[in-house]
Amino acid sequence: MRALTTLRNCDEIFAEFYTSKLNDAQPKDLEAFIGKKLTILKRADVEEKNIIVSAARTKKVAFIAAGDPMSATTHLDLRLRAMKENIHTDVINGVSIFTACAAALGLQPYKFGRTVTIPFPEPNFLPSSPYDNILENYSRGLHTLILLDIKQEEDRYMTAPMAMRWLMDAEERLGKGLINEHSLFCAAARVGSERQALFAGYPDEVAQVDLGPPLHCLVMPGRLHFMEAQALVALANAPADILDEGSGSEAKK
Amino acid sequence: MRALTTLRNCDEIFAEFYTSKLNDAQPKDLEAFIGKKLTILKRADVEEKNIIVSAARTKKVAFIAAGDPMSATTHLDLRLRAMKENIHTDVINGVSIFTACAAALGLQPYKFGRTVTIPFPEPNFLPSSPYDNILENYSRGLHTLILLDIKQEEDRYMTAPMAMRWLMDAEERLGKGLINEHSLFCAAARVGSERQALFAGYPDEVAQVDLGPPLHCLVMPGRLHFMEAQALVALANAPADILDEGSGSEAKK
Repeated sequence: MRALTTLRNCDEIFAEFYTSKLNDAQPKDLEAFIGKKLTILKRADVEEKNIIVSAARTKKVAFIAAGDPMSATTHLDLRLRAMKENIHTDVINGVSIFTACAAALGLQPYKFGRTVTIPFPEPNFLPSSPYDNILENYSRGLHTLILLDIKQEEDRYMTAPMAMRWLMDAEERLGKGLINEHSLFCAAARVGSERQALFAGYPDEVAQVDLGPPLHCLVMPGRLHFMEAQALVALANAPADILDEGSGSEAKK
Repeated sequence: MRALTTLRNCDEIFAEFYTSKLNDAQPKDLEAFIGKKLTILKRADVEEKNIIVSAARTKKVAFIAAGDPMSATTHLDLRLRAMKENIHTDVINGVSIFTACAAALGLQPYKFGRTVTIPFPEPNFLPSSPYDNILENYSRGLHTLILLDIKQEEDRYMTAPMAMRWLMDAEERLGKGLINEHSLFCAAARVGSERQALFAGYPDEVAQVDLGPPLHCLVMPGRLHFMEAQALVALANAPADILDEGSGSEAKK
């Protein structure tokens, strides 16, 4: 209610769709719903030019993003820049992948450890921190949300199978025993949309599953409560033997 | 858009406000906005009686909650029960405290470790796990979202000062060095509402600050990036000396 009312009271609405992607709707659908035109900005417009703050000096301006507007550091920077000019700012939250993904899979959001991002592989750029961070969470029994790299300007979106293969490759490189053939992974596509797709299975399966168009993410569950395991079986087709694993000690080998 | 459209297409809408609290609006405001009546349920109605699933056998039924509908295990259980009867279910996400709190304070959501809940103190019930979990997150440089106990049927909502004192007491009991007089804590009230209030400061201050009516929560930040520290100063009145702390090594003593 609050988002819609606020947008209808603004003089100008800027939007970005490069940190995430709209599902189920095109910008024109949003314009029809709000009853106002959107000015869509590219990353350089937001980060390097001063379009939004300049407009806000004299008008009521909104800046909208797909998902949670404050998840991008540059959006926070925008807000702080406006405040430095004594421009009043407000944040109205959107639905975020952090909780939408947990909800879709039936995993308890409080049991997630630190979130991890997997970057597109580049020559000489194979960081160990994603693998190490997942391992730290897992060793504490916590779930890990694994976000996948986006290069919207090049129309490149990492898929769940690509990310799974990246992690399997990291296991070979780093060899700390995080991933074996019975490690459970969840892959999710277009979370929160009507065409959402979920899959839970073993690495070889996740490395090949076709979940359709972006955006994809992965979750590596930690220690599963019985209801979470039931949820993964019911909602994401997880193999039924995860219901037998009890404390998950086998999965930790 | 999707939530509103879906609700308008339902035959019956059930609601609960015991896992969280509506800000800024009363149920009748929601009814006016949606254009349909709400049937408000108590906890026992949802968890013990079969009202919702029974209705869903023959009608399109919605079940709404303040915040994120899947954060409560019993809501997930409701969903799984419906699915066992071959009733089609869908989840439409709400804005969750997990990300709204991070956004309000300017803290990066990916840097939060496991979430912690502080229970109302009871005789012989002073668990060490909240303190230990915060300590684990903090030792990894991660932020901790600290949720506070609610007993809605008794109209009891833990406040930020109560929770701060609980933690200070836990430091005395457990003595592992998590909290000293220069530890930074953030208190947030009515996050995401128009009457949101934020405060960041030292334990003695947080133990006394009056942030008004519920719901309250705390965050103990881990290692702050410079922009996060700037955000806390600008948004939550954090003391300006947190900008000098660099890697935060002093705060870790």
